[in-house]
Amino acid sequence: MRILSGVQSSGQLHLGNYYGALRQFVAMQNEGEALYFIANLHALNSVRDPVQAKKLTFDTAVAFLALGLDPSRAVLFRQSDIPEVPELYWILGTVVPVSNLERAHSYKDKIDKGQSPDFGLFAYPVLMAVDIMLYDSDVVPVGKDQVQHLEFARDWATKFNVTYVPKYDPADPEGKKGPKGLLKPPRALVQEETALIPGVDGQKMSKTYGNTIELFAEIKATEKKMMGIKTDSTAVESPKPVEGSALYQLLKVMAPASEWAALDASWRQGGQGYGYYKKKLVECFHVTFDGPRKRYEELQADPAEVERILKAGAAKAREYAAPVLARVRTAVGL
Amino acid sequence: MRILSGVQSSGQLHLGNYYGALRQFVAMQNEGEALYFIANLHALNSVRDPVQAKKLTFDTAVAFLALGLDPSRAVLFRQSDIPEVPELYWILGTVVPVSNLERAHSYKDKIDKGQSPDFGLFAYPVLMAVDIMLYDSDVVPVGKDQVQHLEFARDWATKFNVTYVPKYDPADPEGKKGPKGLLKPPRALVQEETALIPGVDGQKMSKTYGNTIELFAEIKATEKKMMGIKTDSTAVESPKPVEGSALYQLLKVMAPASEWAALDASWRQGGQGYGYYKKKLVECFHVTFDGPRKRYEELQADPAEVERILKAGAAKAREYAAPVLARVRTAVGL
Repeated sequence: MRILSGVQSSGQLHLGNYYGALRQFVAMQNEGEALYFIANLHALNSVRDPVQAKKLTFDTAVAFLALGLDPSRAVLFRQSDIPEVPELYWILGTVVPVSNLERAHSYKDKIDKGQSPDFGLFAYPVLMAVDIMLYDSDVVPVGKDQVQHLEFARDWATKFNVTYVPKYDPADPEGKKGPKGLLKPPRALVQEETALIPGVDGQKMSKTYGNTIELFAEIKATEKKMMGIKTDSTAVESPKPVEGSALYQLLKVMAPASEWAALDASWRQGGQGYGYYKKKLVECFHVTFDGPRKRYEELQADPAEVERILKAGAAKAREYAAPVLARVRTAVGL
Repeated sequence: MRILSGVQSSGQLHLGNYYGALRQFVAMQNEGEALYFIANLHALNSVRDPVQAKKLTFDTAVAFLALGLDPSRAVLFRQSDIPEVPELYWILGTVVPVSNLERAHSYKDKIDKGQSPDFGLFAYPVLMAVDIMLYDSDVVPVGKDQVQHLEFARDWATKFNVTYVPKYDPADPEGKKGPKGLLKPPRALVQEETALIPGVDGQKMSKTYGNTIELFAEIKATEKKMMGIKTDSTAVESPKPVEGSALYQLLKVMAPASEWAALDASWRQGGQGYGYYKKKLVECFHVTFDGPRKRYEELQADPAEVERILKAGAAKAREYAAPVLARVRTAVGL
């Protein structure tokens, strides 16, 4: 099973990224061949400062490694190091219906939130489909908001195969022999349980809303953010409401399994103020992230090593990508 | 002065292609550095058969050479041999307003004529802008239908420069020192005079209308097509109408300058039937194209030589393209 996913280097990583995606990515490196990339071509749609773009790409790579990605098990690379990506992007695009892109939720959402309606944003699902299919990926762990894009990717792979496979191998006119066809339609793996991590204001944690708790920011500011999570005016002695409580949700996600039952019981029973639970959250943050934060610091101080890992990852990723692009070029007559 | 143009390998070349474009391209190889490419990535939008796609690419290269393109003066190459093309295509696309593409005449025309509204067709002007700007081209000889695309290309070059130049060189915050900026806005050179070549039915000569006279088709069929050009019922002895006559237009374009005055006078005076002028047209065709047709046959028999020229052209084109892409990548932070 080949697993692929990417993280856009468009902002500093936060708890939402970790519990919604990165944690699973790291865990999955033991379940199959795992390829993870830093989507710095996608990031150009929002990051229009070269210094910032470079720094975010580097920081995202460092974060992956600090959080446990093992480069001897999984392949970590920068999207922009794979020239096969933009090439397949043009070729695949010639069979993609414009109408699909016009009804992409994610594009409409981003425009509604004030992003400029630029072609790169519109084309995002095509590049995403390429990112997946270029490596013959089987499974793509994604958030719910990406499910439509994965459905598009499946449709386009099928359309591409139907358009070109019959002309690809004269000995196999219906494309039945090739177990994969030209492009392999990927399968989405949606992490339902932890897909929604609330921010300090109770909305979904997102850079756009300015409500994030970052993984690798200065520790005092990070603790202050956790202590400032929005809560209601329930009295200390009263049972605390569970529904709609960002603090409860975050504790549930972050507390060690061994402590959760007791915490949950005390929350529902009453007797502790919100400050108590916020301190617990800060403790949980330290337990989980002190190690990664230390590694993060160390790797930040060793950019040459990070670059070495990314270069090696790109070389490995191109070993997967080159034959896929070669067979696509042959199939279309380039 | 650096001149660039391309011809899409989506059909066999005809008189419209020659008098509307190729003749000028060949002439311009003496006026500056000329780069001409076979747009086989664009062609994927309409040619969905790999055998056909490969043959049309080859035939278009052979036609260029047969018509007088001198590979020791001009650079001839295949678009698909330049990996910098799709890479800049993604990057430039991140600053292109979707609204520009939505109001592109050419896209709307093609959809109206029954082409499938696919993303590659929608994105065509972006790839075209890249084809131009990747080589720091100054001048682009184009047909009238491409003028809007050139205006877009100018706008996007400017937008890209405005977005990135200030961050590109801290010593030159307004981008004034760089004589070109990051991307050079190209200038269109529209060939007004011969921009409209009528087909055998009087409409614009176009593969879409099935009214073409091909340059390198079997000669008997080609002569028959010329003899079948639609004319009206004006009597032999009467003066012939000039307006709306495809035959008159084609003669005007194809007759040697030394013969045109006499032909024109006799047409306006009357005394000769249309058959006479059709035979004249066939003569003109032979005078102009017998040489190129012979070279075409010879080159068709020597694919290795054509491939050698295209490979050398691509290597030369990449010498122009690589520094442009490198400065763009640096400017955006890749």
